[in-house]
Amino acid sequence: MPPAPGDREARRKDVSEAVWRVLADKGFGGLTLRSVATAMNVSTGMLMHYFPTKRALIAHALDLLEKRTAERPRRERPAEGLASVRAMLLDILPLTGDDTARNRIWVSSWDLALADEGLATGQADRYTRLRATIRPHLEAARALGELPTTADPEQLAATAVAFTHGLVVQALFDPGRFPEGVQAAMLDDFLASLGPGRT
Amino acid sequence: MPPAPGDREARRKDVSEAVWRVLADKGFGGLTLRSVATAMNVSTGMLMHYFPTKRALIAHALDLLEKRTAERPRRERPAEGLASVRAMLLDILPLTGDDTARNRIWVSSWDLALADEGLATGQADRYTRLRATIRPHLEAARALGELPTTADPEQLAATAVAFTHGLVVQALFDPGRFPEGVQAAMLDDFLASLGPGRT
Repeated sequence: MPPAPGDREARRKDVSEAVWRVLADKGFGGLTLRSVATAMNVSTGMLMHYFPTKRALIAHALDLLEKRTAERPRRERPAEGLASVRAMLLDILPLTGDDTARNRIWVSSWDLALADEGLATGQADRYTRLRATIRPHLEAARALGELPTTADPEQLAATAVAFTHGLVVQALFDPGRFPEGVQAAMLDDFLASLGPGRT
Repeated sequence: MPPAPGDREARRKDVSEAVWRVLADKGFGGLTLRSVATAMNVSTGMLMHYFPTKRALIAHALDLLEKRTAERPRRERPAEGLASVRAMLLDILPLTGDDTARNRIWVSSWDLALADEGLATGQADRYTRLRATIRPHLEAARALGELPTTADPEQLAATAVAFTHGLVVQALFDPGRFPEGVQAAMLDDFLASLGPGRT
């Protein structure tokens, strides 16, 4: 029996929660109608009211990942310069349990995205937007004298994103080696290294 | 009919080639007995002489990835210091077609590895070994005055690996934005930023 209209919204939330738990645990490689049904303790048939196909399930999972990433709590942004870049990159790193689950699901999505032209373009665009979000703060940092006058903000934005996502992957595989304090110290040293000169 | 003993070795090579092509194209998410059989234009039944289960196929694919990574052509290593680190990191980046396929398969393997405790430990150990390989060259660089005396080679090795793998991922999704020259320039600027002071 399909759920009554009043139950529908509540049930939809339960389904999304179960999809998220499966993704955090098994990644997209382990996301099936059956694994989500098991996580919810319902039949696969019940779940097919929501996702008639595996493709629909994956589309929902990707939407959920976008939504939860957009809606995640963020640090207050200092007005400008490297302090602002620092806050943005700290908001990406897997410093808490929730951040770790979200990052683990993003890393998992790369396999899927690399195999699908549309998803790959979407991910390339996401990277372009992320660099574009960071870049003005690097320009401000240069104007403030926090970066050398010769610094290239577009290239530095790509380098900062590279450093951050590469640290995400290492930390996901070895959380004991990369606790919150180590990640933050690495980020601070990385940002300091961009400065106009050190002693 | 199973292959005659004399054919076996040649056929084994064909199978590995087909597995590699499927991985480079579709990743571990698209690796099935059926997709490999289709790539070889043979029946799934024939392929099951080599891989009785999907698990056996995945194990072979992971072995192949390790083997091809270990056996890849590498740049001559300058004797010591940052030039040596540069050569090691250039050997990782997706600068050629072969490098790109190998990196694409590694990134794909992360989803699988994060979902399996044994594989995750293997990947964490791989990262530990990679940092340990880079670290003595950073120590030499510090002794040569290429790094500040306060530099922490273990942390810098983690930072260098983070930068490199994060650049791998961005370049895989957007090869047009990150051609060989851009990747090399980013690496050079990254290494220069580690120096004891710039003007």
